[in-house]
Amino acid sequence: MSSIDEALAQIRRGAEEIIPEELLVEKLKRGKPLKVKAGFDPTAPDLHLGHTVLLNKMRQLQDLGHEALFLIGDFTGMIGDPTGKSVTRPPLTREQVVENAASYQAQIYKVLDPEKTRVLFNSEWLGQMTAADMVQLAAKHTVARMLEREDFSKRYKDGQPIAIHEFLYPLVQGYDSVAMQADIELGGTDQKFNLLVGRELQRHYGQEPQVILTMPILEGLDGVQKMSKSLNNYVGISDSPADMFGKVMSISDDLMWRYFELLSFRTMSDVRTLRKAVDDGRNPRDVKFELAMELVARFHTQAAAIAERDAFIARFQKGALPEEIPEVELVINRGESLGIANVLRDAGLTASTSESIRMLNQGAVRLDGERVTSREIALTHGSDHLIQVGKRRIARVRLKTDN
Amino acid sequence: MSSIDEALAQIRRGAEEIIPEELLVEKLKRGKPLKVKAGFDPTAPDLHLGHTVLLNKMRQLQDLGHEALFLIGDFTGMIGDPTGKSVTRPPLTREQVVENAASYQAQIYKVLDPEKTRVLFNSEWLGQMTAADMVQLAAKHTVARMLEREDFSKRYKDGQPIAIHEFLYPLVQGYDSVAMQADIELGGTDQKFNLLVGRELQRHYGQEPQVILTMPILEGLDGVQKMSKSLNNYVGISDSPADMFGKVMSISDDLMWRYFELLSFRTMSDVRTLRKAVDDGRNPRDVKFELAMELVARFHTQAAAIAERDAFIARFQKGALPEEIPEVELVINRGESLGIANVLRDAGLTASTSESIRMLNQGAVRLDGERVTSREIALTHGSDHLIQVGKRRIARVRLKTDN
Repeated sequence: MSSIDEALAQIRRGAEEIIPEELLVEKLKRGKPLKVKAGFDPTAPDLHLGHTVLLNKMRQLQDLGHEALFLIGDFTGMIGDPTGKSVTRPPLTREQVVENAASYQAQIYKVLDPEKTRVLFNSEWLGQMTAADMVQLAAKHTVARMLEREDFSKRYKDGQPIAIHEFLYPLVQGYDSVAMQADIELGGTDQKFNLLVGRELQRHYGQEPQVILTMPILEGLDGVQKMSKSLNNYVGISDSPADMFGKVMSISDDLMWRYFELLSFRTMSDVRTLRKAVDDGRNPRDVKFELAMELVARFHTQAAAIAERDAFIARFQKGALPEEIPEVELVINRGESLGIANVLRDAGLTASTSESIRMLNQGAVRLDGERVTSREIALTHGSDHLIQVGKRRIARVRLKTDN
Repeated sequence: MSSIDEALAQIRRGAEEIIPEELLVEKLKRGKPLKVKAGFDPTAPDLHLGHTVLLNKMRQLQDLGHEALFLIGDFTGMIGDPTGKSVTRPPLTREQVVENAASYQAQIYKVLDPEKTRVLFNSEWLGQMTAADMVQLAAKHTVARMLEREDFSKRYKDGQPIAIHEFLYPLVQGYDSVAMQADIELGGTDQKFNLLVGRELQRHYGQEPQVILTMPILEGLDGVQKMSKSLNNYVGISDSPADMFGKVMSISDDLMWRYFELLSFRTMSDVRTLRKAVDDGRNPRDVKFELAMELVARFHTQAAAIAERDAFIARFQKGALPEEIPEVELVINRGESLGIANVLRDAGLTASTSESIRMLNQGAVRLDGERVTSREIALTHGSDHLIQVGKRRIARVRLKTDN
């Protein structure tokens, strides 16, 4: 696999659409850092895991050498809701925008690499724009094309008012791509139309159009509706470790795989290995532990993640664990996994794999408090487990890759 | 009749609609000079009588004590055609705008009272406007309402593109009324929608809405299509006295009454008296003389008017024209024309086309007093001509289409 193919495979992970993929390949081949744009609302940003789907993709692109342009759409925010119908969208002051931006920055660097991130405000160029410029911009798109946007077409058909400035916002957003000379724009699937407008405008202004990459909207804890604060089915990235851990542990097994794809930084081959282990009988709860721990570690610390996992187990297994538990680190090759029998042996919990198998067969082995009997179980990179053999032999075992 | 009633009757003259009339009465009753707005294109203005319909109404209002605000829409003119599709609408420079404005002023004061006229340029306030202001303005109207405008709705249904900035122009035009605090806005019937937008925006901005007054679009010399330079059915206000006089004399009797209503400064009771005279047998041609003379006097001099009238009479009456001239109507298919030889025959002025040709060759044929010899001449729909063959054969020939 060439490095381009490898990059492409990573970029494709979880993505809904890449338009057009050929152009992405072309841009990647040039070997220069690409400008990766994503736009964010300037209003009170309490980020939750749903927002991080996009941030994770930005981070991935940063790890591939590209530059993240984190765009705060403060121009429209400072206009407020010009229909005057909504009391919930008063115009933001310059101070509020700055404050909100600071709050963003405190949060996003849990995911993004600050070295490869630029935070931009679109008021910088849109604030200079005159009414005449806006008229010129509006001339670059037609009413009919705008009414093709799904939500507009529905509202128009239903006789629900669409104020004319709503037709200007996609253009303004598209113009941001021109001003930023974006190579790639990321957005949720609901942003596809607007992202495409950016491509058109760049062409109008004589630039190479950006590639657009849409990411699915993350389902909330219920697994059905999109994750949102108002539906209270969210995991906030500022949630306490206990809340975060507990909420992730509450999701269904199906949703867990979705979250692995969109939220975990594990490789997809790691994820496939985990999935196979579950298919082969490993308790999915244990795999969920790993997801919950990864997320707590990312937004808090590794220690907090371990503490939460232990507390979670303790709650379910009262009175069982000794005070001092030895910690063992095992090294495996990236992308590989280690069968449970070998784990037990390598961690010194058994003398040999055959003893491991005997112990498994006797039902003497517990993984994170759960009895395991199958020798098919394998642990992967990043795993962190409490393993017991019988009553006395116990260790916290962590698998890592050596790189 | 109170003075308000009298004023109202004058204002109503020729008007298509006054919306709402009650508000006009209210405004008139206050007894203060009202601001009467009318907007004009900033591009090369060669005014013709069609344009003066509006100017006349402004003049009437000036004579009633009100102030004419002659608005030159240079803001949009200086943007040009932002679709870039039309090479005929390059953006105007500041110098061109100033030049065109000077040209307007040289022409309009033949109708307007300079003492009660202010010439304004909308770039004065729109040039200050930011893109954010434009977004706010655009928020004050809906897409559905805009698509109700007849031409937009037709184009949308026919799948013809409407660029989004076209939705902004009515708003910009409406905003002019806000900036000018207009009390009344005059416009052609085709402007009704835009004038109503002005009312709405004034309300939005906390002003008393303007009254709108629409004037019909003047028919050209053919009596059918609107007067326009491109249709060559116009009387330019800079036409020579001879052209102006001759053109007015060529119109049909019906159209003459229309022109009296919309173009003459005579009172309607004067006009009614003239009409009664014609009903009672007065030669309409003589009444047409009066109209032609009034217009030549307005745009040139009274002396020129008299001279043209005399010359006209001399041409037709070198002792030659009988008192009674038979009228002949010929029917042709729409869009077709009839060669002069056939006209002569069909009108009974010759026995055959070959006699027609002989007469043309002999120089015995006069069309509106002018000798014609070419058989290539053809008459079209709406023509109304005095045709003579020799001394004795004479007829007023009118071509019409049968539908």
